[in-house]
Amino acid sequence: MLSIVIVGTGNVARHLFNAFAESREVKVVQVVGRNKNCLERFSKMCAISNDFAQIATADVYIIAVKDDAIAKVSQSLTSKKGIVVHTSGAVEMDSLESSNRGVFYPLQTFTMGKTLDFKSIPICIEAKQDTAITVLRMLGEAISDKVHEITSAQRKKLHLAAVFANNFTNHLYRISESICLEEGLSFELLQPLILETAQKVQSITPKDAQTGPARRGDKKSIQNHLNLLKDKKQTELYTLFSEAIKKVYEEEL
Amino acid sequence: MLSIVIVGTGNVARHLFNAFAESREVKVVQVVGRNKNCLERFSKMCAISNDFAQIATADVYIIAVKDDAIAKVSQSLTSKKGIVVHTSGAVEMDSLESSNRGVFYPLQTFTMGKTLDFKSIPICIEAKQDTAITVLRMLGEAISDKVHEITSAQRKKLHLAAVFANNFTNHLYRISESICLEEGLSFELLQPLILETAQKVQSITPKDAQTGPARRGDKKSIQNHLNLLKDKKQTELYTLFSEAIKKVYEEEL
Repeated sequence: MLSIVIVGTGNVARHLFNAFAESREVKVVQVVGRNKNCLERFSKMCAISNDFAQIATADVYIIAVKDDAIAKVSQSLTSKKGIVVHTSGAVEMDSLESSNRGVFYPLQTFTMGKTLDFKSIPICIEAKQDTAITVLRMLGEAISDKVHEITSAQRKKLHLAAVFANNFTNHLYRISESICLEEGLSFELLQPLILETAQKVQSITPKDAQTGPARRGDKKSIQNHLNLLKDKKQTELYTLFSEAIKKVYEEEL
Repeated sequence: MLSIVIVGTGNVARHLFNAFAESREVKVVQVVGRNKNCLERFSKMCAISNDFAQIATADVYIIAVKDDAIAKVSQSLTSKKGIVVHTSGAVEMDSLESSNRGVFYPLQTFTMGKTLDFKSIPICIEAKQDTAITVLRMLGEAISDKVHEITSAQRKKLHLAAVFANNFTNHLYRISESICLEEGLSFELLQPLILETAQKVQSITPKDAQTGPARRGDKKSIQNHLNLLKDKKQTELYTLFSEAIKKVYEEEL
């Protein structure tokens, strides 16, 4: 059985804790964090500490804190023999102070209070030492069916791709919501469409899934939409997207 | 029981046909279309015709053809007493020649060969005559739990909102896929994130659902991402989105 310490009490820490708590191959021996209130919720299930000088011994230390706190937190773990990993898509592996360092990056968006099925969440692992990869793979496979060894360069690109697929997509949802609200329409009207759009690309490519005025080269609908838009930024986005989509398909028209 | 004729044999026509075929309150008496091959697939289940002068009598005629063919197709129905509707988000109701005209707009993206649960698909109805609204509501409720009477102005805005939520979102998926492929990474890595992003806004607002560097005001990550992007259009989109997201949350930082 692998023993782990989770450093951090936020969103990712909690989701990882819950996933490992259900696993037979991994035991969380301690949760460490500054915030006593947040720590308290783990106290019934494992040891807790808010003293970074009192971190328990474990096979793996998972630092699940904000990106800009990772390097500093890792300084408390330099004397440990276990593998020290962070969970960030954006932070350099080498920002960890330990010689036995790695990354354990679950590629998902975590919402407080919303349970996730970890089995389908890709976990991207990296390690400085070859032997550590084996351990991190075991750790990942304890909670997910999709463990991938990737390079730092790949992780950076993956994080960038995730910003397009998640953050920017969510902002488009927000724009579509605001267009609805302006007309006294409920955002609920768009929710099934949003879900189906995401479900489509689970089985077909985004290129094949595309529909709409820009794909059809329907200049009249595009002009009608531009006439309806009052917000400059929305107009700019509409134009950029429509041109980009048209370009992809113009050979087919 | 309501009798309907479906004019058109494409994607929307097929999905509507399948939904009505399962309904006890509605009978599809005929499917009309130009394309004999496409018509053939309906022949076992109802009468078919490729002669627009031979359209059967029905309570409602649903024109489910391409936007720019709607007006012309409706000319074949001017002598009919039933309600003539189209299914488009973008076309004027008044482009239909019949005096008893309306719109029956299912707000969803339809993919050939992919079955949908119509019950959760919002159907937006409009009619020139008040009595027609009652009939269109019955027709909608035969296949969906979400029938909404809206105005033409609202439908136009809804269609615009749908372009942001569906077409542009799908283009973001395409960009994220291309970033993955450039690094030899499978798009499968992003699929769970894409689905969860869409699932989040089924229960919380897009504003609350937002995460990522721009929301956090994380300039370092944003600069790192911009350094990774080589494509001009992608850089332009990244900058536009990041600025827009930052603006929404800057008061909270």
